[in-house]
Amino acid sequence: MSPGDFAAFLARAAAVVGREHVSADTAELDRLSTATFATRGRVFGRVSPGSPAEVCDLMRAANVPLYPVSGGKNWGLGSRVPPRDAVLLDLGRLNRIVDFDEDLATVTLEPGVTFRQLHAFLCERGSRLFAATTGGSPDGSVIANALERGDGSGPNGDRALHLTALEVVLPTGEVVHTGFDRFQGASTATLHRYGVGPALDGLFTQSNLGVVTRATVWLAPLPRFLGAVRFAVARDSELGPVLDAIRRLRLDGTLRSAVGVWNDYRVLSVTERRPAGAPLSRQAVAERVGHRWFGLASIYAGSRKLGEAAVDHVEAELRPLVTSLDTAVECGDPRAGHELFPTDDPALAFLQGVPHEASLRSLYYRKREDPPRQMDPDRDGVGALWVSGALPLRGEVIVRATTEVERVMLAHGFDPLVVLLCHAERTLQLLPMIVFDREHADADARALACHDALIATLAADGHLPQRLALPAMGGLPPPRDDFSAVLARLKQALDPLGVLAPGRYDFPPPR
Amino acid sequence: MSPGDFAAFLARAAAVVGREHVSADTAELDRLSTATFATRGRVFGRVSPGSPAEVCDLMRAANVPLYPVSGGKNWGLGSRVPPRDAVLLDLGRLNRIVDFDEDLATVTLEPGVTFRQLHAFLCERGSRLFAATTGGSPDGSVIANALERGDGSGPNGDRALHLTALEVVLPTGEVVHTGFDRFQGASTATLHRYGVGPALDGLFTQSNLGVVTRATVWLAPLPRFLGAVRFAVARDSELGPVLDAIRRLRLDGTLRSAVGVWNDYRVLSVTERRPAGAPLSRQAVAERVGHRWFGLASIYAGSRKLGEAAVDHVEAELRPLVTSLDTAVECGDPRAGHELFPTDDPALAFLQGVPHEASLRSLYYRKREDPPRQMDPDRDGVGALWVSGALPLRGEVIVRATTEVERVMLAHGFDPLVVLLCHAERTLQLLPMIVFDREHADADARALACHDALIATLAADGHLPQRLALPAMGGLPPPRDDFSAVLARLKQALDPLGVLAPGRYDFPPPR
Repeated sequence: MSPGDFAAFLARAAAVVGREHVSADTAELDRLSTATFATRGRVFGRVSPGSPAEVCDLMRAANVPLYPVSGGKNWGLGSRVPPRDAVLLDLGRLNRIVDFDEDLATVTLEPGVTFRQLHAFLCERGSRLFAATTGGSPDGSVIANALERGDGSGPNGDRALHLTALEVVLPTGEVVHTGFDRFQGASTATLHRYGVGPALDGLFTQSNLGVVTRATVWLAPLPRFLGAVRFAVARDSELGPVLDAIRRLRLDGTLRSAVGVWNDYRVLSVTERRPAGAPLSRQAVAERVGHRWFGLASIYAGSRKLGEAAVDHVEAELRPLVTSLDTAVECGDPRAGHELFPTDDPALAFLQGVPHEASLRSLYYRKREDPPRQMDPDRDGVGALWVSGALPLRGEVIVRATTEVERVMLAHGFDPLVVLLCHAERTLQLLPMIVFDREHADADARALACHDALIATLAADGHLPQRLALPAMGGLPPPRDDFSAVLARLKQALDPLGVLAPGRYDFPPPR
Repeated sequence: MSPGDFAAFLARAAAVVGREHVSADTAELDRLSTATFATRGRVFGRVSPGSPAEVCDLMRAANVPLYPVSGGKNWGLGSRVPPRDAVLLDLGRLNRIVDFDEDLATVTLEPGVTFRQLHAFLCERGSRLFAATTGGSPDGSVIANALERGDGSGPNGDRALHLTALEVVLPTGEVVHTGFDRFQGASTATLHRYGVGPALDGLFTQSNLGVVTRATVWLAPLPRFLGAVRFAVARDSELGPVLDAIRRLRLDGTLRSAVGVWNDYRVLSVTERRPAGAPLSRQAVAERVGHRWFGLASIYAGSRKLGEAAVDHVEAELRPLVTSLDTAVECGDPRAGHELFPTDDPALAFLQGVPHEASLRSLYYRKREDPPRQMDPDRDGVGALWVSGALPLRGEVIVRATTEVERVMLAHGFDPLVVLLCHAERTLQLLPMIVFDREHADADARALACHDALIATLAADGHLPQRLALPAMGGLPPPRDDFSAVLARLKQALDPLGVLAPGRYDFPPPR
């Protein structure tokens, strides 16, 4: 691709979307090419379509790589920066809430709709439903986060699992709808998980095979009873049995939402800021924070009696294993669009689908200045690079892996911020967060080295990443089967010119 | 395809699997070509590979259509008969239970493993886990039923949703593994729903794109508490509000398993046999059975207190709406591999993963003779043809549709056996069952006409079928988008010669 090719495409794109929705402004493109760590791909233009039909026209006109972004808030993983040089296909103008059903608990959105916008919509409508909400930015895209298989709060926390009726524009300009939505007037278009025949939804999650221009999100009722169980353990050796107990509580259906467990460094990063110097010693952190690991489990129930029984069951299982445990419960009739618990505790509001920026503040942990009112980590020189390891939900295995992860991070000179997210019945997401100040010399290079070392350390025990930061896109081990060749043929069938997001979750076979 | 082509392939197949595992015996092929209704496709041979490697070799050697069957018990939908002339690829010899994990609640199987075999395995092991079990034959394939998106008992009742790590032989002879199972030694190979990158699993459900030779089934713990709530309503007008209440109880997480609701005719078919004559009148059925609709909801809980609270909540919601309601509960420590409830009630055993043949007996409702000890509906001239409609879980809509369905069945001279399966939070499966005696003149033709009329009646209100009997494979309305062309390209990419199960869930574009 030459700059001339990009310029020629931008001219064609302007004819589709209007000149005012195309940018080749150098300052803007510099900004769009900046993430929270060092990246290679360069943004050669921005095109902002105003309708799915314009997306089709752009795809048909494209002979240069296009990289779709919605909210552009994929912080820690690459923000809106493409893996390779590309024009940004900015879907932010597709921000309509298209349909809503209070009884069947669905909302149909375009990809530009943010968590904040959806929450405000539900409040305005007086809805008694809530959306699984990301711990990331409130201004992230609801659909894009689900397609990335992000996690959220509440019983619909496996966000990709509660997304249906995808409207997908293929790189050929063709359009397909998943599930029953491909049939005109289907009564279960947005309601049925599968439709009939092969289910294509999975092809468009963590992929570069199509642009999703609309989808339906399944909502959950605000519970009549909400319980929060906070627990802490003082020593690593206590953590394993707690995680095993959580597995049993997830498998028996008592816990139906993610349980987050943070280490002491991660907890400290919320309340402190440490602009300079080496990581705190383990002892110094222990003195400041008190315990080693801090967990929060949430219980959603349709009646007070049910909720109290569930809290009791969780407490009975965990109490003998932990150093401290507290429960908070609230029961009643959630007023229209409002939560049961007051919102001054962001963690409790989050459990009820209220997005917040509390987690975002801790990205500034190593910055010299306090976070600004309008936080923008890309602009503010925040360093943030995540690893997202998938582990069996087995205490012993997880404790061994976290010990290794913390060792590697300290050895690379980073505070070992670690979150364990018990996001499912059988697996756990291990999230080492590399947080740094990009304005420090060598910090970028050291962060990348630490990222790669973490991936390698986890992979040595068979723990692979379940979501990839840009530097990890090319770094997975080769498969033991014909997956690479088959995926390449599927890509060829759907994107014969290879214009959509090359380098994104496409795992080309080694040459 | 000429008979010579088939013969030539069978000779090549014998070199792969051994002569004793290939059949061209006319009597056997006649038997294999017989379902529970009139079919067109003819079986031109049977090949029974003994390993996934042999499946690869057979796929590479194939230049004639191959139709994979596992248990071959797809009664009511087509048994093991192919939509078009083909050689049966009989996977029954692949019947190993490959791996089992009591803690993480998984079992890895080959497609020949039956529900009966898996249940026996778990009992022998003293496992405290159970598998979601089909209401169909105990000798059906666990994996094939899940790939068909069959429903089962318990919290893992959406069987396709609890299936992972598919090992798939493509028609090219290539092999892919889904999820993390494509990586050698991945610690979450059989545990993680998605893996990393595009998820291919959905491509191999209700499809003709690959042969699954191994998969992992997620099991559920036998509950510490099991509750059964039986209810009945006397009038159609009462049914709608009950279904709406079930929707709320599913959405709020109180009910985590399918709720079956049977009409009076369906209930009668379990206990009576009516070998001749027109359908019973509504009044005659009412006099015999007492109520119009009969439901069974099941509650699985990790503690007695939780289970009792859930039963109370269900009872509080349903009691004001129904004519009668009874609860049965059992609590304790399920002994290794045994259920909480005694097994003499097959419905309660079924809730705990014990397969049974009680439903099978009612296929003989219109036969002259009592069911034989070894029931084989294909052999016994049983007529059975199912429609599986997907409807929104909205009482009013469902009552309207069932009224129409019963009218159409009676008009075609069939007893309107109807099952409503509340299988999910937002949709319901409406199952009209056409049961007849194939030995009656014209019965086959009348059944097909009734099937087509039911599909058309439901489709007129936007209710499409979610699982297809052979006669429905070519009968869906055309999509409103480019789905047909895209699916055809995916098929071309995975099966360039078109040898795998042509006519099965492939929806060719109209010529």
